[in-house]
Amino acid sequence: MLYPNNIQKKQKGIISYSNRGMALEGLLNETNEYYAEKDVALIFKKPTPIGISEAVYTPKGRVIKNGYFKAPSTLDYNGVYKGKYIEFEAKECQSKTSFPLSNFHEHQISYIRKVLKHGAICFIIIKMNSLVYLLKGEDFVDFLDQHSRKSIPYSYLCEKGYVLKEGYQPALPYLDVVDKIYLKGAYSWQRN
Amino acid sequence: MLYPNNIQKKQKGIISYSNRGMALEGLLNETNEYYAEKDVALIFKKPTPIGISEAVYTPKGRVIKNGYFKAPSTLDYNGVYKGKYIEFEAKECQSKTSFPLSNFHEHQISYIRKVLKHGAICFIIIKMNSLVYLLKGEDFVDFLDQHSRKSIPYSYLCEKGYVLKEGYQPALPYLDVVDKIYLKGAYSWQRN
Repeated sequence: MLYPNNIQKKQKGIISYSNRGMALEGLLNETNEYYAEKDVALIFKKPTPIGISEAVYTPKGRVIKNGYFKAPSTLDYNGVYKGKYIEFEAKECQSKTSFPLSNFHEHQISYIRKVLKHGAICFIIIKMNSLVYLLKGEDFVDFLDQHSRKSIPYSYLCEKGYVLKEGYQPALPYLDVVDKIYLKGAYSWQRN
Repeated sequence: MLYPNNIQKKQKGIISYSNRGMALEGLLNETNEYYAEKDVALIFKKPTPIGISEAVYTPKGRVIKNGYFKAPSTLDYNGVYKGKYIEFEAKECQSKTSFPLSNFHEHQISYIRKVLKHGAICFIIIKMNSLVYLLKGEDFVDFLDQHSRKSIPYSYLCEKGYVLKEGYQPALPYLDVVDKIYLKGAYSWQRN
């Protein structure tokens, strides 16, 4: 089950060890499935928001004949972990030097500010230079408030971000980092 | 703005006072918008999950030419309130005597059990006999565990449910009840 159908194998021509070649979304979907199965958390990718301008009834049910994709105004993933509300976005960054802020819609950025005010655990997962970082929403917003740049330099990610180690099961255990940085001192869900 | 486009006016022929004629979903959308605007909570209806079997590129962007509706496996609304994860479903019930459990898909019911285990605030809002009730997920699941009936009698809803008073702004202040029954003793968001 190394490369399920919906997972793109990247880095063609390079021998891929464990998950190293798997796209970020695939890693996160696998991880979230694992967390749900093992009763760790219920966190899912939200359905893509679409608008429907034409739908018809068929013997198999209602079918969309004309639909369009709406710009998302919230983040991609949300759910519950230990009673807390979690929401995050995942992005792969091709540039090696900086993460372009054009990865976000303007209303997504104001949404991040709001959801933080409401006490959510909110962060961004960024894959860059072959590593996966978790950047707290608070540090993301701080950067925006203190700079007028159109991208976040890699050095900021290295300084403020937390590296997520890719593993076998789960593929990308980001809740370990959530435990450490948000729920300090809380028991870990791992009972080893 | 009594009847926005997407709100069905019900009870034709009957004079409608305040929100009384508005469909439940309309009331909840108005309420959630109000809560978001007033910085009370961020709770939204999830996009309808759809599958896409054909999409084409047009000058205006990618357009869906063949799509189908997937059965929902979670509940309709979720979000964050005072750092807590909230998820709920809203149903209008035409029967005056009982609420059919066929209103839920089987995997939605197992989802309710799971999300409760993870510490979520989870409930069902049911409009029945012209009143709007909030039924805690715990009481919903208790009923299922203790009965093999295919519907919940109205008497159970009267006994276990909490009546939500329809108001002007917000139209259906369900977080007042959440404060009372889940966050006992917590300060109310209303500062009068």
